[in-house]
Amino acid sequence: MPSALDTNMRFKFSIFALLLQVAITVLFGIFVKYKTGRQSEGLHPLFQDVHVMIFVGFGFLMTFLKKYGFSSVGINMLIAAFGLQWGTLMQGFWHMEDGKICVDINSMINADFSTATALISFGAVLGKTSPVQMLILTILEITIFACNEHLVTGIFQATDVGASMTIHAFGAYFGLAVSLVLYRPGLKNKHENEESTYHSDLFAMIGALFLWIFWPSFNSAIASDSDRTKAIINTYYSLAASTVVTFALSSLVDRTGKFSMVLVQNATLAGGVAVGTCADLLNHPFAAMCIGAIAGIISVLGFHFLTPVLASKLNIHDTCGVHNLHGLPGVLGGIAGIVVTAIQRTSGKSALHTPGMQAAALGSTIGIALAGGALTGAILKLPFLGQASDKNCFDDSIYWEVPEEEKLHVGHSNNYDEQSRFEATM
Amino acid sequence: MPSALDTNMRFKFSIFALLLQVAITVLFGIFVKYKTGRQSEGLHPLFQDVHVMIFVGFGFLMTFLKKYGFSSVGINMLIAAFGLQWGTLMQGFWHMEDGKICVDINSMINADFSTATALISFGAVLGKTSPVQMLILTILEITIFACNEHLVTGIFQATDVGASMTIHAFGAYFGLAVSLVLYRPGLKNKHENEESTYHSDLFAMIGALFLWIFWPSFNSAIASDSDRTKAIINTYYSLAASTVVTFALSSLVDRTGKFSMVLVQNATLAGGVAVGTCADLLNHPFAAMCIGAIAGIISVLGFHFLTPVLASKLNIHDTCGVHNLHGLPGVLGGIAGIVVTAIQRTSGKSALHTPGMQAAALGSTIGIALAGGALTGAILKLPFLGQASDKNCFDDSIYWEVPEEEKLHVGHSNNYDEQSRFEATM
Amino acid sequence: MPSALDTNMRFKFSIFALLLQVAITVLFGIFVKYKTGRQSEGLHPLFQDVHVMIFVGFGFLMTFLKKYGFSSVGINMLIAAFGLQWGTLMQGFWHMEDGKICVDINSMINADFSTATALISFGAVLGKTSPVQMLILTILEITIFACNEHLVTGIFQATDVGASMTIHAFGAYFGLAVSLVLYRPGLKNKHENEESTYHSDLFAMIGALFLWIFWPSFNSAIASDSDRTKAIINTYYSLAASTVVTFALSSLVDRTGKFSMVLVQNATLAGGVAVGTCADLLNHPFAAMCIGAIAGIISVLGFHFLTPVLASKLNIHDTCGVHNLHGLPGVLGGIAGIVVTAIQRTSGKSALHTPGMQAAALGSTIGIALAGGALTGAILKLPFLGQASDKNCFDDSIYWEVPEEEKLHVGHSNNYDEQSRFEATM
Repeated sequence: MPSALDTNMRFKFSIFALLLQVAITVLFGIFVKYKTGRQSEGLHPLFQDVHVMIFVGFGFLMTFLKKYGFSSVGINMLIAAFGLQWGTLMQGFWHMEDGKICVDINSMINADFSTATALISFGAVLGKTSPVQMLILTILEITIFACNEHLVTGIFQATDVGASMTIHAFGAYFGLAVSLVLYRPGLKNKHENEESTYHSDLFAMIGALFLWIFWPSFNSAIASDSDRTKAIINTYYSLAASTVVTFALSSLVDRTGKFSMVLVQNATLAGGVAVGTCADLLNHPFAAMCIGAIAGIISVLGFHFLTPVLASKLNIHDTCGVHNLHGLPGVLGGIAGIVVTAIQRTSGKSALHTPGMQAAALGSTIGIALAGGALTGAILKLPFLGQASDKNCFDDSIYWEVPEEEKLHVGHSNNYDEQSRFEATM
Repeated sequence: MPSALDTNMRFKFSIFALLLQVAITVLFGIFVKYKTGRQSEGLHPLFQDVHVMIFVGFGFLMTFLKKYGFSSVGINMLIAAFGLQWGTLMQGFWHMEDGKICVDINSMINADFSTATALISFGAVLGKTSPVQMLILTILEITIFACNEHLVTGIFQATDVGASMTIHAFGAYFGLAVSLVLYRPGLKNKHENEESTYHSDLFAMIGALFLWIFWPSFNSAIASDSDRTKAIINTYYSLAASTVVTFALSSLVDRTGKFSMVLVQNATLAGGVAVGTCADLLNHPFAAMCIGAIAGIISVLGFHFLTPVLASKLNIHDTCGVHNLHGLPGVLGGIAGIVVTAIQRTSGKSALHTPGMQAAALGSTIGIALAGGALTGAILKLPFLGQASDKNCFDDSIYWEVPEEEKLHVGHSNNYDEQSRFEATM
Repeated sequence: MPSALDTNMRFKFSIFALLLQVAITVLFGIFVKYKTGRQSEGLHPLFQDVHVMIFVGFGFLMTFLKKYGFSSVGINMLIAAFGLQWGTLMQGFWHMEDGKICVDINSMINADFSTATALISFGAVLGKTSPVQMLILTILEITIFACNEHLVTGIFQATDVGASMTIHAFGAYFGLAVSLVLYRPGLKNKHENEESTYHSDLFAMIGALFLWIFWPSFNSAIASDSDRTKAIINTYYSLAASTVVTFALSSLVDRTGKFSMVLVQNATLAGGVAVGTCADLLNHPFAAMCIGAIAGIISVLGFHFLTPVLASKLNIHDTCGVHNLHGLPGVLGGIAGIVVTAIQRTSGKSALHTPGMQAAALGSTIGIALAGGALTGAILKLPFLGQASDKNCFDDSIYWEVPEEEKLHVGHSNNYDEQSRFEATM
């Protein structure tokens, strides 16, 4: 007899996913065609770099948990593969030509971008949600993201070339709001599965490094041709600075002066997030370095001091610490955008972007993310969506067939089978 | 005293491999020169993407076996490094200019492609063959592939831009024929080494994801400049559709509704295979999605229902399930090519490709692959080629120095050493 | 009470790293600006390929040690992120325009290149040095490298497009000299941590393959547009030849005919190193194959016969065998450059490069590397730099927080904690 926490997804997930794919295919049949005219073929290498970040970067970054690698890399793939189709439609509806959505390499980059919001939010709730919940979250988040993106770039005419605000801050605060609404008192104390192993940390470094390496492509992919090289250079040096600062602070905040893998996997990337908004605006590599260094500092401090407080005082449990990698650095990026546009305006340069509109963009992004996330969380609380019990959180074996050998190996006990039997008899 | 199953390759493999390298070097000295004139430099990023697929994609995809990771990624590298040289010659002999083979980036992409056929066949016989056998297979398969490719594209004037037929179906049916001829009754029951561990499945995901990510480059690398973007877009959406469908069906076919790593590693890629033949011909992204979805369905059903039947009834043991990833989706791709050329012909478009010739291409490819594979299998049966005994199949330690620690670790016993001693005294 | 071997880096490392980052940021503020005029955007894909090699390639190649993966991939990242900033300055000072260093994609490729020297030297001393020592080494080595590079390309007008001499031989001999000066008799016998596990060898293959795959980009990134394709083709075939030869010899030199992971991870790459100097000069793919084959031979023989002798007779302990991957093949590359320029001179072709100057470049590179390495080693011997005791070498837990589970798992004992306590009470 299925319980309120029935995690068997045989029909719920399968039929829901198939229906979604059928619906998307029909919508594509009605609305989507190839863009004609000048093709942006030079963007193809940039697209492939971003594609690596979405599927390998985000996917493996989250494999640090000792028993949640299948879900991290697998559900990441599912969200991204579904989300890029949904994102094509949601972003396309804002830019239709003769009632048609025209796809080209540029729209594929944007579709990949849209999935990043859902993947960031996935990091906040990693280990605590079911695949069905993640599909629903992806639908809602990408839809709301596309609206906010239109608000920010279409209405406010704000600049956000590397999407510090519209992707990183948005995804983080959306995910944190979901996490707050889905809060479980039973996970207040650290779960025994919520830790890494030596090899899971190395797998996570694969993700971290591919994100780090291709971030210059991420921040420059939708830049204008004339500013692309500048966006690449600024991201390169910003990341380098945040990496050196992260190592320095990682040792400094540790009682015994040792480095922390969590920080090296995450805070080193903060420079890429924070320089995103103004990567194509800065007029000095030195400024990019400063932004990167500050991003590294706030990210390390966030992991060390803020995350525990969020969890214990505000009931916001953030599995991957997305607030420190995407949230705070994303806000820093938004602020940097305000400052840079203000300086450029003062110096008489182009008034295309104004500090006021940049601030409005940052504010609306955070507000919409929090509201959208809270709404989404409320929907995900519906009891039949296959959420695991507290005890079975952060454990692949609830949703995946896990090799026998490994059960003995990692688990040091037969508890996978016992859990399964337990679930089955509930 | 060496037995019929002597696996010591010290002289057999070494001298054979060195002779091959000397022969190839001499042939290069006689026949190969750089192509002059317009260089196709824009192809370089596409080449590098394909190169990642061949060496990291195929290599790591096969690391799922718990004790066969060194061979999977190592022998994959050997086959590809040898095969790309041999492929340059075999493909080049069909396109000589003044008695010379002219190499450029385009020919390097084609050389990489030619190795994919041998790597796919390697997947069918993984764990059951020796490195010497694989070198012989590579020589024969690439030679036959080059002839069939000439027949398909040169004589039949068929289209197959992403090589659904000439690489994927060819490699799969060639490998299955080899596997049938090399059938060993002793492996009828599942071998104790023929399973994955938690971490071996994560290593395999590295391969699966890099294949998935760069498949748009694979299917568009030899497309005409004007159709390249369309091939990229179609592959992108086809893969996305097959991924969502794979997750849905993976849960549906499992008794407890759980996802299977085998399916996520393989069937998600079927969309890339199946859309290959007509990636540059389709005139609607929606059609690519349909092909991808159907490919996901037949791939999952193939793994779930057909592979066990092939093994038990037809004596075809397919270690990696290449029939479901490359065989069936490759045939689907060939059929899609027939349908699409028929539709385009009816609508009065270019009659460059005809459905009849597409059908001939598909038929000849499968026929030649089966015959060539059977012939190759017969040659590989020669007793002195270093094949492992049934008991030592799927075990790196026969052909590789394996770290001591791991022997204890994975094997849970000292049986590596015992096996070695056993071999040595045979 | 801190001892001479105090490894607590809480203040030493943190403050040193922060001061360095502040100093670099100030120097960037004074000296660095974006290059204006024609942007080299076509180089961006090549840059990203090189970037993957530096961070994933070098980083994961060194993860083969069973307990030193965090340091390998993490300190590699630190060195590279710091080094690329320092390299921008050191290389830029030789090419200032109006007192400014102008950065573009080309200078980023060169900055990445400059870090490779320190990463190669890191391989020679891997497991035996502290992060503070590595920062100092990076500063000194990149500074000296930039001077030698100026000497080779600016004064001698020598050619070295793929940097066989200026990066590979330089990094290797610099590192060997450091290793000699830092020689510890206590490590003469093989350390119990100085070995791989099954999975650590697979992680190392990730690094090896990404180096292998993108080496054509490395050797062609700074070639002239007209010679780039030739450099790509030559590197492709040279690597293929060295790979086949490596497998052949790996089996041949092993008593039982088995392949060795060390050789497959390293000697397969020797073809890329050795063809570097003349990748854009060779006029026949056959010549590239010969260079690759010879490189594979000397690399395998170096690992098998020379490395043990260097360690036992000359007190040069080379953890990763960089002498065999970068040193000997780099010298071979330099010699090939002498021969090729001599032949081209004889045949009346451009006398831009002369064999004499090529020889001077090779000699000065090795001499400066050895002297610079010895000097650097002497500085690194200062007792307060956080070097681990002999017993704690090749062990991440001295400098990293290592997951508990793994301590039990890999170490088979609680000795990590005991070691830490031991250190703390020294």
